[in-house]
Amino acid sequence: MNKEELSKLIKTAHGDIKADLVIKHVNLVNVFTAEIQEDVDIAISGKWIAGVGSYEGEKEIDGKGMYAAPGFIDCHIHIESSYLSPEELGRIIVPHGGTTIVADPHEIVNVCGIPGLDYMMKAAKNTKLDIKFQIPSCVPATPFEDAGAIVKAEDMEEPLRRENVLGLAEFMNYPGVIGCADLDLDKIIAAKNLGGKVIDGHAPGVHGKDLTAYISAGIRDDHECESLLGMEERLRQGVYVMLRQGTVCHDLNNLVKGVSKGNSRRILLCSDDRQPKTILTLGHLDNSLRMCVEAGIDPIEAIRFATLNAAECFHMYDKGAIAPSYLADIVLLDDLKDFKVRKVFAKGELVAEDGKYLPSFSKEPIDSVSGSIHIGDFSKEKFKMHLKSDEVWAIEILPGGVLTKKVPVKVKLDKDGEFIFDEKQDIVKVAVVERHKGTGKVGCGFMKGYGLKRGAIALSVAHDSHNMIVVGTNDDDMAFAITSLAEQKGGIVLIEGGKVIESMPMPIAGIMSDQSGEWVMERLNAITEASRKHLEISEDVNPVMTLSFMSLCVIPEIKLTDRGLFDVPSFQFIPVEVNGIH
Amino acid sequence: MNKEELSKLIKTAHGDIKADLVIKHVNLVNVFTAEIQEDVDIAISGKWIAGVGSYEGEKEIDGKGMYAAPGFIDCHIHIESSYLSPEELGRIIVPHGGTTIVADPHEIVNVCGIPGLDYMMKAAKNTKLDIKFQIPSCVPATPFEDAGAIVKAEDMEEPLRRENVLGLAEFMNYPGVIGCADLDLDKIIAAKNLGGKVIDGHAPGVHGKDLTAYISAGIRDDHECESLLGMEERLRQGVYVMLRQGTVCHDLNNLVKGVSKGNSRRILLCSDDRQPKTILTLGHLDNSLRMCVEAGIDPIEAIRFATLNAAECFHMYDKGAIAPSYLADIVLLDDLKDFKVRKVFAKGELVAEDGKYLPSFSKEPIDSVSGSIHIGDFSKEKFKMHLKSDEVWAIEILPGGVLTKKVPVKVKLDKDGEFIFDEKQDIVKVAVVERHKGTGKVGCGFMKGYGLKRGAIALSVAHDSHNMIVVGTNDDDMAFAITSLAEQKGGIVLIEGGKVIESMPMPIAGIMSDQSGEWVMERLNAITEASRKHLEISEDVNPVMTLSFMSLCVIPEIKLTDRGLFDVPSFQFIPVEVNGIH
Repeated sequence: MNKEELSKLIKTAHGDIKADLVIKHVNLVNVFTAEIQEDVDIAISGKWIAGVGSYEGEKEIDGKGMYAAPGFIDCHIHIESSYLSPEELGRIIVPHGGTTIVADPHEIVNVCGIPGLDYMMKAAKNTKLDIKFQIPSCVPATPFEDAGAIVKAEDMEEPLRRENVLGLAEFMNYPGVIGCADLDLDKIIAAKNLGGKVIDGHAPGVHGKDLTAYISAGIRDDHECESLLGMEERLRQGVYVMLRQGTVCHDLNNLVKGVSKGNSRRILLCSDDRQPKTILTLGHLDNSLRMCVEAGIDPIEAIRFATLNAAECFHMYDKGAIAPSYLADIVLLDDLKDFKVRKVFAKGELVAEDGKYLPSFSKEPIDSVSGSIHIGDFSKEKFKMHLKSDEVWAIEILPGGVLTKKVPVKVKLDKDGEFIFDEKQDIVKVAVVERHKGTGKVGCGFMKGYGLKRGAIALSVAHDSHNMIVVGTNDDDMAFAITSLAEQKGGIVLIEGGKVIESMPMPIAGIMSDQSGEWVMERLNAITEASRKHLEISEDVNPVMTLSFMSLCVIPEIKLTDRGLFDVPSFQFIPVEVNGIH
Repeated sequence: MNKEELSKLIKTAHGDIKADLVIKHVNLVNVFTAEIQEDVDIAISGKWIAGVGSYEGEKEIDGKGMYAAPGFIDCHIHIESSYLSPEELGRIIVPHGGTTIVADPHEIVNVCGIPGLDYMMKAAKNTKLDIKFQIPSCVPATPFEDAGAIVKAEDMEEPLRRENVLGLAEFMNYPGVIGCADLDLDKIIAAKNLGGKVIDGHAPGVHGKDLTAYISAGIRDDHECESLLGMEERLRQGVYVMLRQGTVCHDLNNLVKGVSKGNSRRILLCSDDRQPKTILTLGHLDNSLRMCVEAGIDPIEAIRFATLNAAECFHMYDKGAIAPSYLADIVLLDDLKDFKVRKVFAKGELVAEDGKYLPSFSKEPIDSVSGSIHIGDFSKEKFKMHLKSDEVWAIEILPGGVLTKKVPVKVKLDKDGEFIFDEKQDIVKVAVVERHKGTGKVGCGFMKGYGLKRGAIALSVAHDSHNMIVVGTNDDDMAFAITSLAEQKGGIVLIEGGKVIESMPMPIAGIMSDQSGEWVMERLNAITEASRKHLEISEDVNPVMTLSFMSLCVIPEIKLTDRGLFDVPSFQFIPVEVNGIH
């Protein structure tokens, strides 16, 4: 803020000059006092709120009968999981009242390193959604896979100092923290020593002294809280708990039962992962608020979760409330039950109305992040397994599609020990192809329960290193899937009999589309339909999302990386053959 | 924190190694969840809390039956008003559970400029009381007096960046802010642009759009809230309200009525001004907590005022709670009703027990701030008034001793127009002698209602510029008072018949003693007694404190500075004679 802006703000507040904009006659949700101030005007000067009371403006918008709440803040979201660019995610989130998100660019930084963050931060400038960033703390996510980059403590020091960077993103390597691993403590110290930075937690299923040890390192929030007991433990130890409601993870309805009058100021809302279809059909935090109120939470309290609490947790002092000197991020709602969003203001500007994002916008060029696919000397020979036994371990998909079970199965082999697909068995080959440095590394294994009956499907979205993952009934289609995917700069391809039958290119680091939210939703619908109709993939699984988690080797019980089959509980690679020797 | 400390902290939290210190079996006041955790241990590693649960320590202290609360935080206090050095104030506050104060060194900086702050910050290192500083925003306090220094926006930039400096202290010049005065906006911009700094308010009696305009500049707390209406107005606009309970100002019992479940997270406690006698007899925030609970506030809520709320308001992320990674500032209490403090821990160290401060300590040398008295070519001739009329304005003392009334009186004059004291009238001469630069400026006037019957009394504590103020029945004693006061490096002197009958030297900037709290209390008692017994000063007035406010020209209705008699409502100097021409 410069002196001219400050002077204008004060004069507006005092009523000496007309406000730039006045929202008239609203019922204001006061998050400081937990009351509704009926029929008041909100005066705005530039980006800021000047005052609440009776005001005149150069421009006036009637808010009669509507509730004015502070703009909603999503405390933890991966933009990449929407498959959308920051600009596009902003376009579809803002009409739902979201004016700020705390983004963890974990996926793109695993692909592109800090230049991935650079792209995201530049793109963020093109949207009225205020995107704050946390620096990904685990790149690569584990030492058992090849990511596109390695980000050490010293690489974080400059990014941590940037404007709009709030701290360190979810510190997934909790065993590293609890075990005082050198590299992890270096990162924590780097953030701590800057002062005022927030270190996000990620500790699913961690309890007792493990949890205390983890928190003692300075962890201040967690979105991976799966039980009421875990919630109580975290809150008592000063950890803000997020009621996560994403496309896949639905924690809100359970965790909301743990909210009490005593702990409510430490409750936040987040999406974590939210796909365009979920946003375009259900909404964003407006939907979470609706659910909170349905679950019996007082509406003003619920709004505090999405506003003041979030601003306090992340040290955003000029956000989270409608008051003089705060940024004019304001949502007009029909009521505090359905939370139907009528108008959204961001930094003093009307940016959405009745579900429509209003500003025109340009998009950041994607050249710097679109050349991320390097498969080197890849050929279908890479899928040869030379098995010495037909008794092999398979990755069995469990309901939900993230957890897996390690099961021994018998497969048909040819004389060279290569897999022959058998329609009577729901077992297919799965492979992860390193795609960042062209190292030629390919890990192969088997997957059970996916339902694929012919062809192949391949993705370059494969958590967390985002190598290419491919499943198929035959090596020809699998190889064609990989080369087709590389040609289209990543994304999703479905192959049947040597032809691409459906696809979605994702040229932004191979993990995000450069198209609209509606287009991505339509493509994903078409891909799902084709996968069921042509490839007969099971109705129980999401063909894309389920596959994309099969390489996430921090989630039990068995996963596949570009280096091979990984047994999560024992934290080691295992041979594919049940009696094999590694 | 370095890596070794962090690693030790995590290992302690995990139970891998014994804690440095464990406080066993306490009933923990959990300010995050507003509950009591019964019979738990607090493990401490170095300065930090490692965990709460069941722990073993190299050293163990039994807390059975006691309540453990976070150390108390006084959100606004002038150390100088205790007349004690930072070390001594720490010694008497810490045993009452105060582990952190937010100090506004307004008085010493008005005398010494930034070197006064430097002394305070160095001295602060010698006490276990964690003293955070706000940079005084109004030096000089007004343009109508001569202070020892001028601190402009550019002079603040370096101090604002210092460790332990939280922001800008009470912005007293609210008319300047509301009127967008250039120099004031410069200061606010300087603080704002650093990010994360807190700007304290000071807006007694300011309401409506004046208040909104003031807050719009970025004011985030106020300790000058005198009514429930004012409290509601401030809270609604995002201003933390302090329930002030000082030696003079007693706002708590009134304001506590305005606390609600909805607004309670925005309530703080403070002393503002608290003299040794008050601390040594009544206590500090322990007393405020007692009063809150007596007034019906839930004890855990009251403790939040003094801990978590304060830490949040002032962005002290590692304070205000007993939880892993927080600083180990802990108070053990007998109960949550009388708040009798048993033990106090500061940064992991036991620092007070049963009212006694335990650590030995050295004191910062005071040389840099003890040469502040410069009266130049002062002589008793300076008190000559050459009055042209015996009808003069007098400063009438009102109950409370801070507000005054402008009254016309008739005095006896000699042939040269000089004042002759008349025992039948309760009117004495009062003068303010500039003492910072030896300019020789002396302002003279009359005071009514002080009761003085003989001799003179002089102080170098005279708000806010701390020139010398003297009252007397005759010029000889007054002049002797001034020279005696200069000789003893400031403080207080009582003169009768050309002799010093009582005194307290205050060599630290002429406004603080270098002696103990008990000694200062005893001296002040003796001075008060002598002033009544020998000089017959009225029982209704505090001879020292009342006099020290007679030069505070922001408080109505009529005051005296070194430049003359000041009419506060019209904001101008006036002649002493009722019909005089200036």
